[in-house]
Amino acid sequence: MRIPLDRQSEVPLYQQIGSYLRQAILSGNLLADTRLPACRQLARDLGVNRITVENAYSELESEGLVSSRMGSGTYILPQNHFALIQKNDPDALWPLWQQSVKDRDTESKSSMVEEMLRASRQPHPINFSSGVSDSRQFPADEFRKVLQAVMRRDDAAALDYGEGSGYAPLREGIAHILASQGLQTGPENILITAGSQQAIFLASQVLLKPDDVVLVENPTYSIAIDLFRRLGFQVIGIPMDGQGMQVEKLENLLQQYHPKLIYTIPNFHNPTGTCLSSPRRRQMIVLADRYNVPILEDDFVGDLRYEGHSQPSLKALDPGGQVIYVSTFSKMLMPGLRIGFIVANGPVYDSLVNFKHLSDLATSTLIQRTLESYVTVGRYQAYLRRSCRIFHKRRDAMVEAIEHYLPPDVSYDTPKGGLFIWLRLPDGLFADELLPIACEAGVAFAAGNCFFTGDVGGREWLRLNFVSQPAEDIEEGIKRLGLAVHRLKGRK
Amino acid sequence: MRIPLDRQSEVPLYQQIGSYLRQAILSGNLLADTRLPACRQLARDLGVNRITVENAYSELESEGLVSSRMGSGTYILPQNHFALIQKNDPDALWPLWQQSVKDRDTESKSSMVEEMLRASRQPHPINFSSGVSDSRQFPADEFRKVLQAVMRRDDAAALDYGEGSGYAPLREGIAHILASQGLQTGPENILITAGSQQAIFLASQVLLKPDDVVLVENPTYSIAIDLFRRLGFQVIGIPMDGQGMQVEKLENLLQQYHPKLIYTIPNFHNPTGTCLSSPRRRQMIVLADRYNVPILEDDFVGDLRYEGHSQPSLKALDPGGQVIYVSTFSKMLMPGLRIGFIVANGPVYDSLVNFKHLSDLATSTLIQRTLESYVTVGRYQAYLRRSCRIFHKRRDAMVEAIEHYLPPDVSYDTPKGGLFIWLRLPDGLFADELLPIACEAGVAFAAGNCFFTGDVGGREWLRLNFVSQPAEDIEEGIKRLGLAVHRLKGRK
Repeated sequence: MRIPLDRQSEVPLYQQIGSYLRQAILSGNLLADTRLPACRQLARDLGVNRITVENAYSELESEGLVSSRMGSGTYILPQNHFALIQKNDPDALWPLWQQSVKDRDTESKSSMVEEMLRASRQPHPINFSSGVSDSRQFPADEFRKVLQAVMRRDDAAALDYGEGSGYAPLREGIAHILASQGLQTGPENILITAGSQQAIFLASQVLLKPDDVVLVENPTYSIAIDLFRRLGFQVIGIPMDGQGMQVEKLENLLQQYHPKLIYTIPNFHNPTGTCLSSPRRRQMIVLADRYNVPILEDDFVGDLRYEGHSQPSLKALDPGGQVIYVSTFSKMLMPGLRIGFIVANGPVYDSLVNFKHLSDLATSTLIQRTLESYVTVGRYQAYLRRSCRIFHKRRDAMVEAIEHYLPPDVSYDTPKGGLFIWLRLPDGLFADELLPIACEAGVAFAAGNCFFTGDVGGREWLRLNFVSQPAEDIEEGIKRLGLAVHRLKGRK
Repeated sequence: MRIPLDRQSEVPLYQQIGSYLRQAILSGNLLADTRLPACRQLARDLGVNRITVENAYSELESEGLVSSRMGSGTYILPQNHFALIQKNDPDALWPLWQQSVKDRDTESKSSMVEEMLRASRQPHPINFSSGVSDSRQFPADEFRKVLQAVMRRDDAAALDYGEGSGYAPLREGIAHILASQGLQTGPENILITAGSQQAIFLASQVLLKPDDVVLVENPTYSIAIDLFRRLGFQVIGIPMDGQGMQVEKLENLLQQYHPKLIYTIPNFHNPTGTCLSSPRRRQMIVLADRYNVPILEDDFVGDLRYEGHSQPSLKALDPGGQVIYVSTFSKMLMPGLRIGFIVANGPVYDSLVNFKHLSDLATSTLIQRTLESYVTVGRYQAYLRRSCRIFHKRRDAMVEAIEHYLPPDVSYDTPKGGLFIWLRLPDGLFADELLPIACEAGVAFAAGNCFFTGDVGGREWLRLNFVSQPAEDIEEGIKRLGLAVHRLKGRK
């Protein structure tokens, strides 16, 4: 035990030891029934006389904080705990450098929504604001068995550091799955990351520096906007329509801003659910090539298609090294695994591996090994088919509920895949004003403004996740939303 | 399946489909026995006529690449694979922007050492170059059972996203363990990270911007130097002696460079193994406070003490928010878990949580939940005692072997804890020259130069990990090292 002692202080050492332990016990940091180090041991650790420690312990015993049991040691007694620890008091006098630290408001939007929902009077709140799929669909039991088998098979090796680019058999497995879905690459071009968020993070850190410009669809994935801003990039939005990014407008922006990156979600876009049309895909690659700009393709749910024709990923159309592709198992399978990956060709691959190494050395090998055993091509395809079937029904349920319960002057396109319906409120109604009313009624959604690059705009939009709830909850949720819209209209 | 088709091309669509599949099969990306999508399905996916797909499949069948089994579908036949995929050919014509990407040499030093060792003629190579503890000591079996129990208990919840700051019960558990080791803090000041590497990464990203100065011990943890340089910081070294950083020299450097951070490893320093003396600890905190500079305390093996008195962590001496403390379970328990943590007070805590969220959303909840169940105070203390006992013996074995097998003009201080012996070669001998000779003899170490902030210097030093091998291997390894030193001397 490393107790801080001040030998220059006038406070006797036994009192210093006693007051350290007293505080730890009263604050609850040292739990009841914890055994304190033996007097001789602690005296040796701290370089003090044994009597000093004995005196400290006796004092604590006389205060009823500890009890020494003959022959077995000194144990902490149960206490009523007081919060003695210094909390993050906003008025505390922190060092000056702390005042210049940015981003104090870290409470994420989704956790605020959760709180608002919990505070509602509804016993069964329904949350359409999530950005992920329904983890209740995931066969956790099967996964547990695979995990078990991997631990038995690999023993301690499963808990060692792995290769910086990721567990090689997993990278091979991902190459097979990608090929079965229409993207050809090799394990030597795949880098395993902690979810696709880290993939986007690494790519942007490697490709851009502060003040560089990144082009994004407007609207786009809100945490990508937050990330790009936090890294000091200038974020320029490209308008969208029902066919995805308006690539016709891209060339002008490329000439005007000399961006260092185009970040795009061509398939079942977040938040709008649109798919980039085939001619626009080819046009985007031609332009990126002509203006020497890398494309970061975020294919977070590219395979989750319920109808219509498939579109090749940009990476599959890429003749040579222009496109950096990121995807994830978080959305399709289970978010908590935190496994995503990057596919990149050329020197940038090595830079990404290197930056990943510097940022966290490697991603948990145990999880990688388990995923490798679990996600075979056959299992992936079966899981994909099953998910598509279920989510297709849920999409239909939501569309039907919208038609039934929401006023006829809302507008939206029915998405052909993915997770989201992007819905426009009647003129004059704003989603951020609707959200507290909806939460009160027991339903939540993601308000549109946070997906836009500008500080204003997008307030009339909202994003509804239609895959995260069973059909009956979808109907009930949209019914509540209709009620909330009605209430908001009444207040106007 | 999303096969890229070019409808403007003169190549017929069936040939485009055929050539995509042919390449995927021959390259091995589509494995033997994989079932291709049914013709009708693929035709619908791609928006082509069913005949088109049938023609493509027949062509592949006639080439012996696939075989259609009546009523069951079309399957890929086993092939001799050719590497058709574009490799990272250094001479390939990559997009121009790729040429400006930095850090092409990502082959980490440790993997190069592994390779050199493998290439040696020794059937049983011995590696002292590792930076971690001996994972064979870890009770993987016990851990597996806990993991299993957690999966049963928490089911799908174990695979969901968790709180951004980390799983709350784990943060509580860490607060208890820290208190039992002499550092008082609360769960609300703890942030779970992907190992201590990510902890250092987050702290430096939040506190510094490019061109800022960071002060470090010279030598120090080599990947921290690499990281700071990669982020564009100016790295200034503070000389060390047997009592750790020469804090007397700190004030001058603070006045001269106006650094934004002091990065320090006060306990069982990497690579030197020294402990910062108690007066210097207090002096460092006084100076950091006076010059308004945060201290990043890396306590990666602070509890692994084999003899001597304990020193309080800087964080335990910190009156208010000056010190950001990072530590890890990677070194003590098992590296592959990738769980570390930060302890910070004041506004900077929120900034760290926020930046963590942007960089990878969260760390695997499954691993966090398992660790929480596994690492109780009692288990941690028992594991610590056991590790100290074993590693103490190994340290003694290495010291004994050095005295016996290395020339008397090497020099080193016997470390009182931690993982490393830091050894100086006789005058005129350089560790980087010794390393290939040693690897040939079947033993490896970490050459000293990579731990120094200057581009030159430190070549006469090497770092030996004494905990990662059993005692008999330590003796054999040092014997081989003695042989290598002898050979190098002979060549001079």
